[in-house]
Amino acid sequence: MRLRYIEGQYEYLQDNEKAITEPEKRDYKLNKLFNNPNPIHVELGCGKGKFIRETALQNPDINYFGFEKSVKVAYRCAKSTIENDPNNYFIVYSNGDILQDVFEPNSIERIYLNFSDPWPKPSHYKRRMTHKNFLDVYRKVFTENGEIHMKTDNNDLFEYSVEQLKEDNWDLILVTRDLHNSPYLQNNVMTEYEEKFVSEGKKINKLIAKLKHNCLGII
Amino acid sequence: MRLRYIEGQYEYLQDNEKAITEPEKRDYKLNKLFNNPNPIHVELGCGKGKFIRETALQNPDINYFGFEKSVKVAYRCAKSTIENDPNNYFIVYSNGDILQDVFEPNSIERIYLNFSDPWPKPSHYKRRMTHKNFLDVYRKVFTENGEIHMKTDNNDLFEYSVEQLKEDNWDLILVTRDLHNSPYLQNNVMTEYEEKFVSEGKKINKLIAKLKHNCLGII
Repeated sequence: MRLRYIEGQYEYLQDNEKAITEPEKRDYKLNKLFNNPNPIHVELGCGKGKFIRETALQNPDINYFGFEKSVKVAYRCAKSTIENDPNNYFIVYSNGDILQDVFEPNSIERIYLNFSDPWPKPSHYKRRMTHKNFLDVYRKVFTENGEIHMKTDNNDLFEYSVEQLKEDNWDLILVTRDLHNSPYLQNNVMTEYEEKFVSEGKKINKLIAKLKHNCLGII
Repeated sequence: MRLRYIEGQYEYLQDNEKAITEPEKRDYKLNKLFNNPNPIHVELGCGKGKFIRETALQNPDINYFGFEKSVKVAYRCAKSTIENDPNNYFIVYSNGDILQDVFEPNSIERIYLNFSDPWPKPSHYKRRMTHKNFLDVYRKVFTENGEIHMKTDNNDLFEYSVEQLKEDNWDLILVTRDLHNSPYLQNNVMTEYEEKFVSEGKKINKLIAKLKHNCLGII
C-alpha cells in the first residue's frame, strides 16, 4: 500500500517528544540521549513501530532506537501508541547508513533488521541492509558483543545475507529458515508484516550474526 | 630448587587475611568475596605472587585470585609483600581443577596460565593446564567473553596447547612465539620465571584464547 504524504507530517515528527529528526545535526551522539548506562539496541526500518514498542516494553533495561527512513511511515509510527507505552525508545526519522555519524563507536549492542526491503534487482543490492557497505557501518558502532538479528520472509534476501555475513567474517550463531516451526521462537516479538505472513502460512527466516573476535596477531 | 616444608606453613595460610584455604568448604562461592561487580581474573599457579600483585596494582577495577597448589609456595607467596600491596586480590591454596566448585558459572572473565608445569611425559599430559579436561573446567566458569592468557618458555607445551585449543573450538586471538620481540609486549607483567628466562635470552611464547561464540543452531 502506497502511503500518501500529508502536509505537516514532518513537522509532527519535529514536535513529537519520542521522535528525532535530523539526528546528524545535534551536538551530541544519540547514545547520550538516555541518562543510564544500559545497552543500546537499534531497529533499522521500524515501520509502524509494533516490534520496537513491544520489545522495549518487555526489556525495560535496554534502550531502543527505531530508525525509519520514510517520513510517511515514521509519522504513522509516531502517531501510534500502545497501552503502557514505554519510555526506553525513540523513533528516528533517518536512514540506517548514518549510524556511524550519530552514534559513538562501541555504543550499539544489537541491530534488528526486520523484513527489510529485498531490493531484488542486482543493481540495487547495494541498498540491501546486509550489503558489505552496511556491515562496515554496523562494525563501526558495535560493542565487542555486537549482534545482528535479522528476520525476513524473502528467501533470496536471506541467502544473500547469510553469504555476505560469512564472506565478511561474522559468526552466524543462529540460522533458521522456518522460525515459527523451530525451537527458537521463544520471546519472539512479531512485526506487523510477520503477523500477516505467518497467518498466510509463509515461512519466516531468521539469523543472528555476531562480530568475530578481534584477532590481535598470529606470528 | 626444592622447597622444604616448614611446620606451621599451613596454619600461617589459614590465619593470613589475603590467603584462602579449603575454598570448597565455604558456604559461598569465591566470586562473592569482593563486594563489587568488577570482573574476576584468576591466575592458576601464582608462584610467589609477583605477577598477580603487580597486575592487581595496575588494575584496581579488576578482582584477582591467585591459585597455588603447593603449600610451600603458597606460604612464600603469602609472606611476600610489595609496596602499596593492593586490596583486590586473594591467594588461594588449592588446585585449579576445583574452579567449577568454588566459582559460580559465568563468573570468571580471564584465566592466566603463567609458566605452568610442562609435564613432559605423555602419560602426564592430563595434568597440563591446557588439557581438554581443564578447558572444560574453564568453560564452566567463564563469562561469555572468557579469555585464557598463557605464557610459557616451554615450546612443546606451547604447541600442544595451541593444538588442544584449536581442537576444542576456541578462537586463538593472539599467538606469538617470541613475546619480547613482538609488538604485543605492552603492559606485560613479568613473572619471576619470566625475568630469569628473558635475562638468559630464552624466547617466551604467549597465546590468548577466547571462547567461541555459542552457536544456538543452524537448521
